[in-house]
Amino acid sequence: MKKMTRRMFNTTLSMGVGALAAMPKAACQSTNNDKKLGVALVGLGSYSTYQLAPSLQETTHCKLAGIVTGTPEKEQIWADKYGIPQTHIYNYDNFDTIAKNPDIDIVYVVLPNSMHADFCIRAAKAGKHVICEKPMAMNVEECDAIIDACKKAGVKLSVGYRLHSEPYTQEMMRLAKDKDFGKPLFVSADAAYISRGNPDQWRLNKALSGGGALVNMGVYSIQSTIYGTGMNPISVTAQEFSTRPEYFKDTDETITAQFEFPNGLVGNIFTSHNASINRMYVAYEKGWAELQPANNYGPLSGTTSKGPMPDFPQERKQQGLQMDDFAKHIFTGSKNLVPGEMGKRDMIIVEAIYQSIKEGGKKISLDLGMMGIV
Amino acid sequence: MKKMTRRMFNTTLSMGVGALAAMPKAACQSTNNDKKLGVALVGLGSYSTYQLAPSLQETTHCKLAGIVTGTPEKEQIWADKYGIPQTHIYNYDNFDTIAKNPDIDIVYVVLPNSMHADFCIRAAKAGKHVICEKPMAMNVEECDAIIDACKKAGVKLSVGYRLHSEPYTQEMMRLAKDKDFGKPLFVSADAAYISRGNPDQWRLNKALSGGGALVNMGVYSIQSTIYGTGMNPISVTAQEFSTRPEYFKDTDETITAQFEFPNGLVGNIFTSHNASINRMYVAYEKGWAELQPANNYGPLSGTTSKGPMPDFPQERKQQGLQMDDFAKHIFTGSKNLVPGEMGKRDMIIVEAIYQSIKEGGKKISLDLGMMGIV
Repeated sequence: MKKMTRRMFNTTLSMGVGALAAMPKAACQSTNNDKKLGVALVGLGSYSTYQLAPSLQETTHCKLAGIVTGTPEKEQIWADKYGIPQTHIYNYDNFDTIAKNPDIDIVYVVLPNSMHADFCIRAAKAGKHVICEKPMAMNVEECDAIIDACKKAGVKLSVGYRLHSEPYTQEMMRLAKDKDFGKPLFVSADAAYISRGNPDQWRLNKALSGGGALVNMGVYSIQSTIYGTGMNPISVTAQEFSTRPEYFKDTDETITAQFEFPNGLVGNIFTSHNASINRMYVAYEKGWAELQPANNYGPLSGTTSKGPMPDFPQERKQQGLQMDDFAKHIFTGSKNLVPGEMGKRDMIIVEAIYQSIKEGGKKISLDLGMMGIV
Repeated sequence: MKKMTRRMFNTTLSMGVGALAAMPKAACQSTNNDKKLGVALVGLGSYSTYQLAPSLQETTHCKLAGIVTGTPEKEQIWADKYGIPQTHIYNYDNFDTIAKNPDIDIVYVVLPNSMHADFCIRAAKAGKHVICEKPMAMNVEECDAIIDACKKAGVKLSVGYRLHSEPYTQEMMRLAKDKDFGKPLFVSADAAYISRGNPDQWRLNKALSGGGALVNMGVYSIQSTIYGTGMNPISVTAQEFSTRPEYFKDTDETITAQFEFPNGLVGNIFTSHNASINRMYVAYEKGWAELQPANNYGPLSGTTSKGPMPDFPQERKQQGLQMDDFAKHIFTGSKNLVPGEMGKRDMIIVEAIYQSIKEGGKKISLDLGMMGIV
């Protein structure tokens, strides 16, 4: 196997990543490089501002290279703060010209959910690798469209599930796989925060968000049940609760759902915009393990029936680890920890939960196989 | 108010407790006595053998005074071990003659669930105070019959919920009441153990148990949601899961249920005979508290969002505390921590859960008011 040289690598990058992705896999399998992939953030809301941009200051394999914003006054602020040249700043109208920018390798879509599909597909068409913030899209159909567009363009696709790069989460995944405590028998995951802010925020507007607590926080609970057991659910039942309909006019406030997994393993989740909860728990044949907090920006904390988990490193931001893992995948062909199929699978589950609620808690069968399980 | 003297007290006891209970309340309000109430255990299975009898060796206000058993070979063993005279040993046929025994003040019914109502009612008719092991009975109708019989006989009635006398549990009740962290917004409680023993045991025989995991372990979860929030649920939905139908031929293996409480508070429970779990959690407006373990024989352990709970004393067995609290209630008229109405309320909830399952997860309304909340 021919080893990739620095010069080859730089040449590859200057070709744009569409070409990179189209190259034979072996040609990309180098970790011996000091070139960072350029990331453009699309949408400069609080998640980009306070999580992603700071994370990109400490990443090893990627860096903040461009921004895409619909708010002109943010352009200069970001340009000054992060030294972004005017040529690397885009708005939603001229976004597609990003195709011509060889310094942008990855487009990270951090827009309201209703805009995910459009911008992910446009990014793919521009020949850029794509990270789509969670939830992946408004519905399964849009997830498929994103996945297809990335395949067609020969670019890599990931979803903004940062926890797959987080060490306590990885330990929970390892326990499911290595069976230190035997097989999992039950998993419980609760993810919630109290929303009392501006009632006009996009998250509370179904046309922009696609749903309420379930698509915002519930996907964490869904994720926890799956990586905590290493399996996809085979059926779901669900219920909805409401206490402040005047505030949650348009989106779900609180949802509980029960999953049936293969081998009769049961999952139980709670998600809400009206409580503050952040935990997951797995009971195995011979012990248990839990994380609390389980899905905030860290540091997380874990305990098992044997005592506290090891002190896994928590210095680096989860988002930085996540983007570095994706960059490694692009560079070396290492496993994509969060493929698009994972985001699609979660959207299938989300839709099944809403369907069960609509049908009075009816059991909805799921035929997911190993979809999204890496 | 005339203070009760030792002589009066002894006289009262020698009258039998039916007469004691019928006396004006003030006459009983003395804590200044060194007389212990005599307890007769009905049913000498493992709970009596390993929990109740040992607990009665360390109680302050009551003592083991008699036994009732259907197994003749147990009579001598218990007589020798605990110095029980032949006159204080009964079988199921001659049980009613216990009425004539002035040394027996309390009858504690520890039989299979199907026998609770019969023996509680006979104990009440014999003029004895009654403790009925949990679950209180096979159905609500039987609970009513027990409550009525005790009322008619003028005897006190309690249910074997030992945790109401347990300090970590009492701390959870206090948090709901004093609102250290604001109002509760969500409660979760899981209670389960793995049953792999004799498939012919009475707990797995519906005619003897009235139900499976739900009536055995689920009542702990139901209890946790109520004492953790200080409220009764107003509706419930539920689901059933099964993995080993050949073993659980007759009774429920795993059940999940969702409660709606006043003010929109949501409760989520899991109970099973096919997993080992023992925990409860309450999310309040400004923090959280949890117990793990939450309902085993101790020691329990508690944590809040501020850190570990104080080291509450755990030296005394929960069952001893429970029986002493009931004895104090009899002696002094102090609050009955676990009145019969609490056991009945939980049976109403159990029946609603089974009904919801039968109707495919339909929401069942509950009209409990403050029933059973002390």
